[in-house]
Amino acid sequence: MLFTCEQPEGQARDPGELERIIGQAYEAGRARTQTGTVASYIPELAKADGREFGICARNLAGETIAFGDTEKRFSIQSISKVLNLAAALTFLGVRGTFAHVRMEPTGDAFNSILKLDTVSDLPFNPMINAGAIQVMSLLSNIIDFEQLLCFARAFCMDEQIQLNEAVYHSEAETGDRNRAIVYLLKSKGVLQGDPDKTVDLYFRMCSLNVNARSLANMGLLLANGGVNPFTGQRMIQTDHVRILRSLMLTCGLYDESGAYGVWVGIPSKSGVGGGIMGSVTRQWGIGTYGPALNEKGNSAGGIAALRYMSQALGLNIFA
Amino acid sequence: MLFTCEQPEGQARDPGELERIIGQAYEAGRARTQTGTVASYIPELAKADGREFGICARNLAGETIAFGDTEKRFSIQSISKVLNLAAALTFLGVRGTFAHVRMEPTGDAFNSILKLDTVSDLPFNPMINAGAIQVMSLLSNIIDFEQLLCFARAFCMDEQIQLNEAVYHSEAETGDRNRAIVYLLKSKGVLQGDPDKTVDLYFRMCSLNVNARSLANMGLLLANGGVNPFTGQRMIQTDHVRILRSLMLTCGLYDESGAYGVWVGIPSKSGVGGGIMGSVTRQWGIGTYGPALNEKGNSAGGIAALRYMSQALGLNIFA
Amino acid sequence: MLFTCEQPEGQARDPGELERIIGQAYEAGRARTQTGTVASYIPELAKADGREFGICARNLAGETIAFGDTEKRFSIQSISKVLNLAAALTFLGVRGTFAHVRMEPTGDAFNSILKLDTVSDLPFNPMINAGAIQVMSLLSNIIDFEQLLCFARAFCMDEQIQLNEAVYHSEAETGDRNRAIVYLLKSKGVLQGDPDKTVDLYFRMCSLNVNARSLANMGLLLANGGVNPFTGQRMIQTDHVRILRSLMLTCGLYDESGAYGVWVGIPSKSGVGGGIMGSVTRQWGIGTYGPALNEKGNSAGGIAALRYMSQALGLNIFA
Amino acid sequence: MLFTCEQPEGQARDPGELERIIGQAYEAGRARTQTGTVASYIPELAKADGREFGICARNLAGETIAFGDTEKRFSIQSISKVLNLAAALTFLGVRGTFAHVRMEPTGDAFNSILKLDTVSDLPFNPMINAGAIQVMSLLSNIIDFEQLLCFARAFCMDEQIQLNEAVYHSEAETGDRNRAIVYLLKSKGVLQGDPDKTVDLYFRMCSLNVNARSLANMGLLLANGGVNPFTGQRMIQTDHVRILRSLMLTCGLYDESGAYGVWVGIPSKSGVGGGIMGSVTRQWGIGTYGPALNEKGNSAGGIAALRYMSQALGLNIFA
Repeated sequence: MLFTCEQPEGQARDPGELERIIGQAYEAGRARTQTGTVASYIPELAKADGREFGICARNLAGETIAFGDTEKRFSIQSISKVLNLAAALTFLGVRGTFAHVRMEPTGDAFNSILKLDTVSDLPFNPMINAGAIQVMSLLSNIIDFEQLLCFARAFCMDEQIQLNEAVYHSEAETGDRNRAIVYLLKSKGVLQGDPDKTVDLYFRMCSLNVNARSLANMGLLLANGGVNPFTGQRMIQTDHVRILRSLMLTCGLYDESGAYGVWVGIPSKSGVGGGIMGSVTRQWGIGTYGPALNEKGNSAGGIAALRYMSQALGLNIFA
Repeated sequence: MLFTCEQPEGQARDPGELERIIGQAYEAGRARTQTGTVASYIPELAKADGREFGICARNLAGETIAFGDTEKRFSIQSISKVLNLAAALTFLGVRGTFAHVRMEPTGDAFNSILKLDTVSDLPFNPMINAGAIQVMSLLSNIIDFEQLLCFARAFCMDEQIQLNEAVYHSEAETGDRNRAIVYLLKSKGVLQGDPDKTVDLYFRMCSLNVNARSLANMGLLLANGGVNPFTGQRMIQTDHVRILRSLMLTCGLYDESGAYGVWVGIPSKSGVGGGIMGSVTRQWGIGTYGPALNEKGNSAGGIAALRYMSQALGLNIFA
Repeated sequence: MLFTCEQPEGQARDPGELERIIGQAYEAGRARTQTGTVASYIPELAKADGREFGICARNLAGETIAFGDTEKRFSIQSISKVLNLAAALTFLGVRGTFAHVRMEPTGDAFNSILKLDTVSDLPFNPMINAGAIQVMSLLSNIIDFEQLLCFARAFCMDEQIQLNEAVYHSEAETGDRNRAIVYLLKSKGVLQGDPDKTVDLYFRMCSLNVNARSLANMGLLLANGGVNPFTGQRMIQTDHVRILRSLMLTCGLYDESGAYGVWVGIPSKSGVGGGIMGSVTRQWGIGTYGPALNEKGNSAGGIAALRYMSQALGLNIFA
Repeated sequence: MLFTCEQPEGQARDPGELERIIGQAYEAGRARTQTGTVASYIPELAKADGREFGICARNLAGETIAFGDTEKRFSIQSISKVLNLAAALTFLGVRGTFAHVRMEPTGDAFNSILKLDTVSDLPFNPMINAGAIQVMSLLSNIIDFEQLLCFARAFCMDEQIQLNEAVYHSEAETGDRNRAIVYLLKSKGVLQGDPDKTVDLYFRMCSLNVNARSLANMGLLLANGGVNPFTGQRMIQTDHVRILRSLMLTCGLYDESGAYGVWVGIPSKSGVGGGIMGSVTRQWGIGTYGPALNEKGNSAGGIAALRYMSQALGLNIFA
């Protein structure tokens, strides 16, 4: 096993202590699942069991600590926005991407189009639906789903990732608000690809089957500066990693991003499938799964577990 | 000189190199002043000389590096929002403060009231006018201006800070939008103090005369975890420092906060008087002065200098 | 008794039939009061008895038909917006008035400031709070309350109209949203008078004590083309009457104006004090009093009675 | 020739005088065309000649007075919203229609979706795009384009009305904002038909080729209470006519409806193809054609001509 980055600093803790702390984070998350409810706006998501919860944390010292439902597959949903943006940065560059989408948090709900129609023709950031669809319109001209799937598998170090057909069809059947967004972008003359192809790719990427371990890997790769720590291969450029991490921090948890920044302070991205992916520079990749969501659409258990872990291990970027 | 915190890590640079880099940051900032324009919405601010520029950087190794107009006094304006929030956290606690104001970035302009009237009765965050006025309404019940001035002087390690009477009167004469905000908050039943007293305190705190050095000191104290590195005295609690730094990062540069996070990545707060205050944990406090503002109301030169310094010294929190 | 206008056309009905129809309108209105609730946002209004209801209809044939609580005094509230606009038109002319306020319905609630801050610096129309305050700022420079009171008494042909001191103080104490509006207008540079004087006059005019008969008189004068039918004296210019009636139709019942236009079709203005004043050209002035309001802030009973009367007597302007 | 309605009242004017007045209205309109610009958002519309202007006025006394380009065919555009609403009322009834769309003016531009996403899930009124698309979704389940075309021909008493294929294809190619609206309505669960079928029918109805005479006929039929004055056949129910005329008055000229009500006061509907259709109860049907539009998207010449005619002949409903 090859680790190209430095070890977590000042972590003189024994593995047992880490296991104990993350076990407590797991308990904190699992307890909190009771306060949330499973997403219902896509029928296929409503079938999830809200009591399920799992956390997988991997660090650059080579340790993997997992509790609960960490092998259970679920749809990646909005966490794919990180994959899409990473792909756009890789294939189109920073300018080629951010000529078409802004970088500002909105304070609005994930599917809001208010700002799009009143403040700016360009979507506010790639972590909300409008911005992610815009990014996908760029990608749709140069890449197909199979290639994006390969990209996702490599990023998540998980060859088992597949399209969840049931979720994909459910997305496509109920994704009218996203269709409204794609046509609004087109009507403003900013969309960069074919509307149908764009939303189809967007729906497909939302429907990838991941588990908490895949998400931990994603976070670990970002924590390692964009390099796969197991192979030493660079996946994402350093400056793209910085952009991804920054937007995850300011925009990654919808209109809960600000509070999450204060109380957790780990660049993260959530999805309504119940996942949260977090990345602590030079230290941790963390994936949680808990489909019971809070009123902002973020995993209730995942936030609780990440908050516990951040406080107990001093991972808050602002501390 | 007493420094209670650890030294900047891995900074094997000689002082000459730091001076050279910060000198280049100064040049980058000074060049950029030409692209900005001095604030005009308060007559007194319009008198500033847009070509002025200065940067003062102090680190926890005891070094102070300054270029340009770093002793020139100017009004602190919105950077006082950090002082006000720090005072509220100190005197009322985290819960006593955030029961009355949220923590979310808005993506709206600094003086927007759109969200206040459509999304939430509580102001979105303490770094925009509505939130800062709300915080001041809390303070207005327990503290007077003299005490806030003392607090500001201690935080900035600068006993020369005075009320700029001309700016204060100019603020009071033209502050109708802030009066609209205070009455809107009162009409919603969320304001916690007397409207007149609240805006008067708010205007006064915006009118404090600081210089780039005072702002560097503010950033240094935050970089040092809330402890004055010269006296060893704790000024701000550790957990309050984390909250301040987090909100500076997500909300500190108005609707440019997201892009600033990506390109600079230093928790900072700007003011339309031309100042920017930045804080790099365990390393730097940085103050810049450049009254020529960009279209978002942030110092054009300040952003350029801070971006240069962040990149050259690797200070981006997301790198 | 002198009537300068033609008689109601084709009204071959005997007075008994009119009395019967208006009696049925009264019953329809009184029954509907049960579905509404008394305004609570001003303490003094909350004291009203929601079961009270009255209708007074006067026509240009010299008939007066009244049922129920038609002598009961209540505060005129937003119906004063018609008085204020009429005064502005009289003393400042059409251009002098509409240079400062627009003529468009908004579809927003009566106290909305959304449009003011997003679409237009000028208030949308004089029948919503923002527009009426703007109109009052114009008047505040040339007229005082005593003169406006005289104007109101003459318009309503009612020398008993007084300021309701209790309501006035209640308005002034709780009128923070209107203060927010006046300062927002001032901050945009469109307000034409002193903010305090403007809102004070506005509150006073909202607090005039009228009854259903006064409102019927107001409507009758408008129905008579601006001429007092009892004295033959012209009170309002013909072209101003047209403007008043048009804005009453498109904007007179807040965000219920469109439906009211369809189902009733009588230019009218409502107030949260429970009054509605309607005017049928060359025929009727109608005043209703019923403080139980529907969810749009309009008198539930008043709308039901006016709708009944409009249908039974064919008064809909669009029929 | 059979006229079922009463003659214009008190019109002791000789035909020569009417011709002179309407000739002056024509001149007023033609002069004003210079201030407007041809619609450009649909390529096919941009081909129109902005200097063209025509007016056709027909009254229930059997007179037809026409000046200018009254036989020139142009696309009906938004005036078809009146046809669609009339068809919905006819085939689905008042309740069956207004259970799915509101009746309130918005003060927003014709294609706004702001209110739809912030205030109400149901579109504000059938005279803006969102509301008209909603109405069309109702119709799409029970009627096809051929039937709607027949309905339009009968309403306009014009068997020459055809689909303008070039405009239709241009609409369909550039109608992305309308597609955004249809999907937004679907995502809110309020749309009543298939999205593709709905917008296709909507585009087709916007693309009907009419002339000023067809529009005058439309207005004449409404002026005659819904009965074809030439055949005596009832086309639209009396109470539906009242609803159509009321919504034309409050919502017929987009965010210029309020001012148009004051200065013209004739229930009318405009289209970006350059047409305006007006209806004066028991008197006139008026059609104007002038593709040079003002900044609100209404025919500059048409408004000027209708205003002249309204004032000269005393047609303002509020006078």
